[in-house]
Amino acid sequence: MITRKKTPPLIVVSMGDPAGVGAEVILKTAALLASRRGAPSMVVVGDLGVMRATASRLKGVPQPGEWRHGEPALRLNKGISVLPLSSLSARGIRPGHPTVEGASAAYEYIVEAARMAMRGEANAMVTAPISKEWMNRAGHNFPGHSELLAKIARTRRWRMMFAGGDLTLALVTVHIGLAKVPAMLTKPAVLDTIRLLASHLKTRLGVGRPTIGVLGLNPHAGEGGLFGDEEIRVIAPAIRRAQREGIEAFGPLAPDTAFIRPAGSFKFDAAVAMYHDQGLIAVKTIEFDRAVNVTLGLPFIRTSPDHGTAFDIAGKGIASESSMMAAVEYASRAVAGREHGMRRAAA
Amino acid sequence: MITRKKTPPLIVVSMGDPAGVGAEVILKTAALLASRRGAPSMVVVGDLGVMRATASRLKGVPQPGEWRHGEPALRLNKGISVLPLSSLSARGIRPGHPTVEGASAAYEYIVEAARMAMRGEANAMVTAPISKEWMNRAGHNFPGHSELLAKIARTRRWRMMFAGGDLTLALVTVHIGLAKVPAMLTKPAVLDTIRLLASHLKTRLGVGRPTIGVLGLNPHAGEGGLFGDEEIRVIAPAIRRAQREGIEAFGPLAPDTAFIRPAGSFKFDAAVAMYHDQGLIAVKTIEFDRAVNVTLGLPFIRTSPDHGTAFDIAGKGIASESSMMAAVEYASRAVAGREHGMRRAAA
Repeated sequence: MITRKKTPPLIVVSMGDPAGVGAEVILKTAALLASRRGAPSMVVVGDLGVMRATASRLKGVPQPGEWRHGEPALRLNKGISVLPLSSLSARGIRPGHPTVEGASAAYEYIVEAARMAMRGEANAMVTAPISKEWMNRAGHNFPGHSELLAKIARTRRWRMMFAGGDLTLALVTVHIGLAKVPAMLTKPAVLDTIRLLASHLKTRLGVGRPTIGVLGLNPHAGEGGLFGDEEIRVIAPAIRRAQREGIEAFGPLAPDTAFIRPAGSFKFDAAVAMYHDQGLIAVKTIEFDRAVNVTLGLPFIRTSPDHGTAFDIAGKGIASESSMMAAVEYASRAVAGREHGMRRAAA
Repeated sequence: MITRKKTPPLIVVSMGDPAGVGAEVILKTAALLASRRGAPSMVVVGDLGVMRATASRLKGVPQPGEWRHGEPALRLNKGISVLPLSSLSARGIRPGHPTVEGASAAYEYIVEAARMAMRGEANAMVTAPISKEWMNRAGHNFPGHSELLAKIARTRRWRMMFAGGDLTLALVTVHIGLAKVPAMLTKPAVLDTIRLLASHLKTRLGVGRPTIGVLGLNPHAGEGGLFGDEEIRVIAPAIRRAQREGIEAFGPLAPDTAFIRPAGSFKFDAAVAMYHDQGLIAVKTIEFDRAVNVTLGLPFIRTSPDHGTAFDIAGKGIASESSMMAAVEYASRAVAGREHGMRRAAA
């Protein structure tokens, strides 16, 4: 069921670790959205007891109500819909005290929410934070949400993207040691990143002809082969191929000067970085915690806030909802952009 | 001849490529310093004709005058002292048109200025920009000033450091391909960087007990060995050794979050980065062109502005002196800090 044009998008949100700040930042975000026209509807896949206990500690947030497949979602000024997959409150789960049981439940929230997005029951998926350490203790070994979602969606052609107020950036490689990066950099790996990023900008963000700045791997982008030849062998050929496909990609850019903005704006709509810290040092330095994490290449829109479970402040009511709000808003815009893109493609 | 305490420091400045913006930014910096009490004196090692021709195109800058070894330097409100090593004007050198002859001369300026600093004839050395391409054409193959100066000073134990308004950072490795970085990271290489940086902060900047944040190499600083083991094998042991030597070093820090400043300031006085772009993406993003390049480990203080020859704007009078000014000011402060450190050591 794809939501019709005039209907606000439905966002499915996995509640994250029940001992973390997930429930709190979801409720605070819902409270902010409740008074907005055209705000998205939400269904939280999680624990109704934890959501209710969290809501009771906060002021002015929508009351959680049970939701079942096929029902319409509550309007946020009436309450917030929760698909209950666990009953942890009765077993003593407490904020700030993660358990294996809680992590197992959080895993199930993700799987169910992803299935809803894949079936079209929701227009987009937002994930609240989980603890990798506790996931591992619960027997689920994966580096992060993205890898798990790619597995559920049975795709290997996915990329991690970050979008802040100013900087949008996708990564060719992610959670591997730096020593393994050069061998992982192939022309198809770089080219697919450029393609996925350009496609996202066009169809989901409505950027007509996006410009994509592609970073080099080495200092000064290799300085003509003096400090490494990956730019010559791999990156430049991938850029040329993308250009032949009609994508306005350019580079390889010297990584250290690529993020300087003498005129206030970047010289690209979005950038492609070769490895985790090359991209994320820039994203986190420029955007602090404003960046939204987006997974490219999934058969559905997926975003998440750029923070962790914050067990140390869970249950205190002091967690900031700004990053979760940004993730939900980005997902909503991407849904609208996709519809726009589909209309254009059909025209 | 070490300048006495009450005497302003004498800074020797190599003029850089005679077709670049070096002479212009030196003269503009001298003009700003001329009216200041306690401003450093300057001797420019370069081309008197080029300095005079440049001065004639600018308003309100000190007039260049010939200087010979052993003479006192002109006070900047009277003029600017130039040790002439070339006579390129007569041979038609023009701003924006680099030549092999000009690059050869620029090489000699560096060598002579470094010797003056090594002999104690000057208290510190500042280098105006050269063109690596034209240096190579002139038969001088080195990646940059730092490597050449290390060779002149016959030391291999040197490091590149950057200091901006907010961020001070030293690099363990510099001008090598990313694929070679892991093999170059040894415990002595990391430890020496920490030692040189801590020593610089103490003796030249007057920071009593500097805190040194040491970055990891891998995403999330390796996440306990999951994404590479250099943190466990190399970086953490180097930090522990530095701590045993009384240095307040800590880490390895996750590289992507190390430069976030929720409270406005970093959690360290200075940072150690493992490779060129890990450090310089942060430095250039945070400091734009305000950062000063400092070489640690030389037997003299050496700084430089963080920009190139800018052949495209040379001779137009529009080059900004702000980075050269920062380099000269940093060198002056370091001279004062060193004297302070020497007094403390003697007490």
